[in-house]
Amino acid sequence: MSKDKFTLGIDYGTESGRAVVVRARDGKLLSSAVIPYPDGVIDERLPSGSKLEPDWALQNPLDYLYVLDGAVPKALKEAKVRGEDIIGIATDFTASSPMPTKADGTPLAAIPKYRKAPHAYVKLWKHHAAQPEANRINEVGRERNEDFIRIYGGKYSSEWFFSKLLQVVDEAPEIYDAMDRFIEAGDWIVWQLTGKEKRNTCTAGYKGMWVKGRGFPSRDFFGSLHPRMENVIAEKVGEDYSPLGACAGRLTAQWAKKMGLAEGTPVAVGNVDAHVAVPACTVTEPGSLVMIMGTSICHMLLGKEKQMVEGMSGTVEDGIVPGLWGYEAGQSAVGDIFAWFFEHGVPDYILREARKMKVPFQTALEKRAAALRPGESGLVALDWWNGNRSVLVDVDLTGVMVGMTLATRAEEIYRALIEATAFGTRTIIEAFESKGIAVKELVACGGLPEKNRLLMQIYADVTGREIKLADPLQTCSALGAAMHAAVAAGAARGGYDSIVEAAKKMARVQKLTFKPRAERHAVYDRLYGEFHLLHDYFGRGGNDVMKRLKALRREMAAE
Amino acid sequence: MSKDKFTLGIDYGTESGRAVVVRARDGKLLSSAVIPYPDGVIDERLPSGSKLEPDWALQNPLDYLYVLDGAVPKALKEAKVRGEDIIGIATDFTASSPMPTKADGTPLAAIPKYRKAPHAYVKLWKHHAAQPEANRINEVGRERNEDFIRIYGGKYSSEWFFSKLLQVVDEAPEIYDAMDRFIEAGDWIVWQLTGKEKRNTCTAGYKGMWVKGRGFPSRDFFGSLHPRMENVIAEKVGEDYSPLGACAGRLTAQWAKKMGLAEGTPVAVGNVDAHVAVPACTVTEPGSLVMIMGTSICHMLLGKEKQMVEGMSGTVEDGIVPGLWGYEAGQSAVGDIFAWFFEHGVPDYILREARKMKVPFQTALEKRAAALRPGESGLVALDWWNGNRSVLVDVDLTGVMVGMTLATRAEEIYRALIEATAFGTRTIIEAFESKGIAVKELVACGGLPEKNRLLMQIYADVTGREIKLADPLQTCSALGAAMHAAVAAGAARGGYDSIVEAAKKMARVQKLTFKPRAERHAVYDRLYGEFHLLHDYFGRGGNDVMKRLKALRREMAAE
Repeated sequence: MSKDKFTLGIDYGTESGRAVVVRARDGKLLSSAVIPYPDGVIDERLPSGSKLEPDWALQNPLDYLYVLDGAVPKALKEAKVRGEDIIGIATDFTASSPMPTKADGTPLAAIPKYRKAPHAYVKLWKHHAAQPEANRINEVGRERNEDFIRIYGGKYSSEWFFSKLLQVVDEAPEIYDAMDRFIEAGDWIVWQLTGKEKRNTCTAGYKGMWVKGRGFPSRDFFGSLHPRMENVIAEKVGEDYSPLGACAGRLTAQWAKKMGLAEGTPVAVGNVDAHVAVPACTVTEPGSLVMIMGTSICHMLLGKEKQMVEGMSGTVEDGIVPGLWGYEAGQSAVGDIFAWFFEHGVPDYILREARKMKVPFQTALEKRAAALRPGESGLVALDWWNGNRSVLVDVDLTGVMVGMTLATRAEEIYRALIEATAFGTRTIIEAFESKGIAVKELVACGGLPEKNRLLMQIYADVTGREIKLADPLQTCSALGAAMHAAVAAGAARGGYDSIVEAAKKMARVQKLTFKPRAERHAVYDRLYGEFHLLHDYFGRGGNDVMKRLKALRREMAAE
Repeated sequence: MSKDKFTLGIDYGTESGRAVVVRARDGKLLSSAVIPYPDGVIDERLPSGSKLEPDWALQNPLDYLYVLDGAVPKALKEAKVRGEDIIGIATDFTASSPMPTKADGTPLAAIPKYRKAPHAYVKLWKHHAAQPEANRINEVGRERNEDFIRIYGGKYSSEWFFSKLLQVVDEAPEIYDAMDRFIEAGDWIVWQLTGKEKRNTCTAGYKGMWVKGRGFPSRDFFGSLHPRMENVIAEKVGEDYSPLGACAGRLTAQWAKKMGLAEGTPVAVGNVDAHVAVPACTVTEPGSLVMIMGTSICHMLLGKEKQMVEGMSGTVEDGIVPGLWGYEAGQSAVGDIFAWFFEHGVPDYILREARKMKVPFQTALEKRAAALRPGESGLVALDWWNGNRSVLVDVDLTGVMVGMTLATRAEEIYRALIEATAFGTRTIIEAFESKGIAVKELVACGGLPEKNRLLMQIYADVTGREIKLADPLQTCSALGAAMHAAVAAGAARGGYDSIVEAAKKMARVQKLTFKPRAERHAVYDRLYGEFHLLHDYFGRGGNDVMKRLKALRREMAAE
C-alpha cells in the first residue's frame, strides 16, 4: 500500500477561518482548526475608531493572514501529517468581498495613511450600503441591454463587486485613484500564497459580470456608470481568469516556512464558499439542490442548459462543476433571523424553563415549537429581516409578521420564523421549476442542519421533498476546498484529475434523511399560498411601505 | 357648617371590584377598597374543571357578591364614615357581560346542576366566541333594514348582548329554556341590592338594540334569528328601562346589614364603566373625547345630534349625559397588547439592564423607547392583537408588524406597539370628524395614563391634540358611580339633581397636560399614512389572510 497523501483546505467564513487536513484517497478528515478574525465583522466602528454608517460591513484583510499563521500549523500538528505529505492547497471565501490594493498586493487598509478610510477595507459580502450604486448599474445595464442583466436573473445586487467598487468611486474617489487593483479577497489570499495575482472564473462569473468566452462588459458601459471607471477592467480588475480546480501557482518559500508546508506545493485558484460545497455534498449532476445553511442560505443547482431564472444570483457555465451550468440563488438571512430572535425575542419563561430542564434555551424553545402543528399558531411571516436575495433581489425589503393575538407565544413566533425561511426556499425551488429546471431532492450542509432538526423537518414538509444531510464530521466548504486542492495537485501526485472524480472518492452524505409528510405538506400548501400573496404584495410594488419606512428611518438617523 | 354627606361607588372591572367612599360636596375620595374576583376571568377551564374552547371568557356571578361583602365594609371603615351618612349607592359594570338567571334572580351558574355548563356563566365583555352569531344578526338585520344596524355604525358586535344570547340558543338550547331572565351583570347586581329587577337604558342602548322611544326590534326580527327567540323580549329580557341617574330602588335589609349601610339607601340604576367615567372626567359637553385607557380603550364623545359614524359601538340619546347624544367607540386591546409584550417579547438584556438600574423592567424598556424618534425604528404595526372594535368591528382581525431587520431591538417593537394603538385612536377621531363631530381635545383616564407617560406623549404627537388627565387620585369609573349615587340621592338629601351639577362639584382634571409637538406630528402623519394603507388592505378585504389563518388555526385546534 502506497503512503497516504493529504490535502489542505482553508475555508474563509464570515466570522472566522478554518484549516482542515483531509486524506486524499477517501476524504477522511484528520484535523480542523478554527481561528476567529481578530477584528471580526466591522459594522459599527473601524479598528481606528471611526464610526460607520448603517448597512456597512467591512473586514480587515490582515485577519485573513492571521488565519494562515495560526490555523494551518495547528491543523497539521493535530493531524500528525508532515508538511511534505500535503500535495495541494485550496481556499474558499465568502463572496463578493472585494478590497483595494496596491500593485504588489498590499491592501490599502494595511497602509497607515488609509487606516481611517472605511473604503480602504474589505467590503464584506453583507455590506449593504451600495444600493444606490446597484440601482444605477441596473438602470444603465437595462438601458444598454447588457448581458449581465439576464445572467443575474434581472438584477445586479448591491452585495456584488461592481456595486461596491462604484460606491468607492462615488464616495471616496481618492481611494479609487490610490488603488492599483480591486480584487476579491478570495483571489487576494491566493495571491498572497503564490506571490502571483491569479483570479478565478467562479467569483468573476457570479459576482463580477464576467462571461466565459466574452469577458466583461465594454469600456463604454463602465464609462456610462462613471467617467472615472471607463478603463476599470484594464486598470484595476484584469482580464486573466482561471477555471475552478486549476493550479494558480506554487506556494512561496515565505508562506511555506510560516505554515510548515513544502515550498512549491500547488495552490488552487480561489473559489466561493457556497460553490465549493456542492461537490463536497456529493452533487455533480442536475436535480439535487444543495442548500448551504448558515447565517444565510445559498442554493446551488446544476443544469444542462443556460436558463434565465428570476432573481437568481447568477448562471455560470462551468461555475460549479465543469461541463454544466451552475445556478446560484439565496436567502439573505436564515440563521441570522433565528440569532436575532434568540437575542431580541426570547422571554423570561423560556429562559426559566431551560434552566429547569438544564438545557440551552434554544433547546427548550425548539421543543415547544416542535410540539405545534402547521397552522396552529395562526402566524405567517416574510423572512426579509436582511432584505430578499432570491427571487426579488431587493435589500430594502424588511420583515413582516401577520396574525399575532393576545394568545401568541414565543415558540409560535419562532416556528413562524422557521416556516418563513422554508417558504423562501420553496419560492426559489418554484422559480427553478417554472423554467423547467427540476429540483428532485435537497442536500443540506452548513451549521444549521446539525443544530436544528425541527428546521430540517419543516423544510421537508414545506417543500414536499426529501432532504439529505452532508457528512456531519465535515465542514462542507472546507472539504470542498480540500477536494479542489486534490484536483489542483492532479492524479499523478496522488490527487484527482477532475472534481467529479474527487467527489466520488472524497464526499459522502448521511444515511439519515428528512422525508416530507403528506398531511403536513397539504397544510403548508395553504400557508405557502398566504406567504406568496404577502410576498408579491410587499415585494412587487403592491405596497412599497418597507422602502418608505427605510427611507424615513435613514432620514431620522441623518438628522 | 352642615354635616358632610357621602356616597358609595362600586366599580366592577374585568379582574376585580372596587368600592369607594366619596364626599358629596366636592368629590373628595375618602377610601378605596379593591377585591379581586376569586375565579377571575374564566378563559381556560370552568371552576368545575371543564375545558373551554378558544375565545371564551366567562365570569362567576357569585364573585360580584363577594366584592360587596368584602370591599364595602372595608371602604367604610377606612373612610371612617358611618353607614347612615352614605346618602346613595351606585354601581358601574363592564358591558356587555350578560348572564342567565331564574325568575328570582338566582344565577344559573349558582345552581349545582348547571355548574358544568359553560353557557350558565356570565359571558364577559371580551368573550369572543359568538362571532358566527354576530354575523347572522348582521345579515338578518341588514336584510330587514333594522334600525340597530345604523345605530351601531354598520355592525352589531360579537361582544354584545344578543350575539351572546344567540350563542346560548345555538349551542345550549337547554340553558336557554332553563333561564327565566337573560340580564346584564350590571343590572343583576342592582337587582341583588334592591331586590327588584330594574334595567338601565345605557347598557340596553349601547349593547342591546334598545332605542329611546321605540324599544327593541320586533318579534318578527328575533323570530328570524331563531324560532325559539321570537318572544325573547317578553320572556327573558323585558321592556322596562330606567335612565341613568335614576333611583332603581332602596337597599334591602339583608345587604344593608351585610355591608354596614342603612336599609332603604337609594341605589342608582346600573351603568357602564366607560360611560360613567365621562362626567367623572369633567366632560358634560361636546368636543372633548374621553379615553378610558386600560386593557382596552373606550372612546366616549358627546354630540348635539344623531350621527351615524362608521364602526361606532353605539350612538344613544341620553346615553351618557341627559339631553345629548352619547357616542361610543373603542379599541379592543391596548394595555393588553403591552401586557402581552411584557410577557412574551421582553428579552434578557432588558431584564438585566432593569436589575442593574434597580427598576421594574417596564421602566427600563420605556426609557429606551422614549429615546427613539418617530420613524427611527422603521417599524409600523396594526394593533389588532384582539381584533378591531372601531372602526372595522371585526374580532377576526389579528396583529401585524412590518419593517423588522436584524438590527431591530425590543424597545423599537415596544414603541411600534404603542404607536399602533395611537394610530388606532387617530382612526377613530378621523371617523368622528368625517361626520362633522368635532374632537378638540382628549381627556384620558384609567390605569394606563398614570403608568405610562411616554404613551400619553405619543398619543398627543400622533393625534395632534392636547391631552388632559383625570384626577390621578380617583378611579374615574368609581368616581363616576359615586357621582351617579349622588344624583340618585338627589339635592334634597345632600346630593345633586343632575349629573351636570354633580360633575361641576365632584370632578376635576390635572394641571399637567400633554401637548402635541409639531415636528413629531409631521413625521407621524407619514407613519399614519402607512398604518392607514395597511389598515384598509388587511381590514377591508384587500387580503383576508387574517381570517383564513384564524380559520386554519381553529381547524388545526379541532383535530
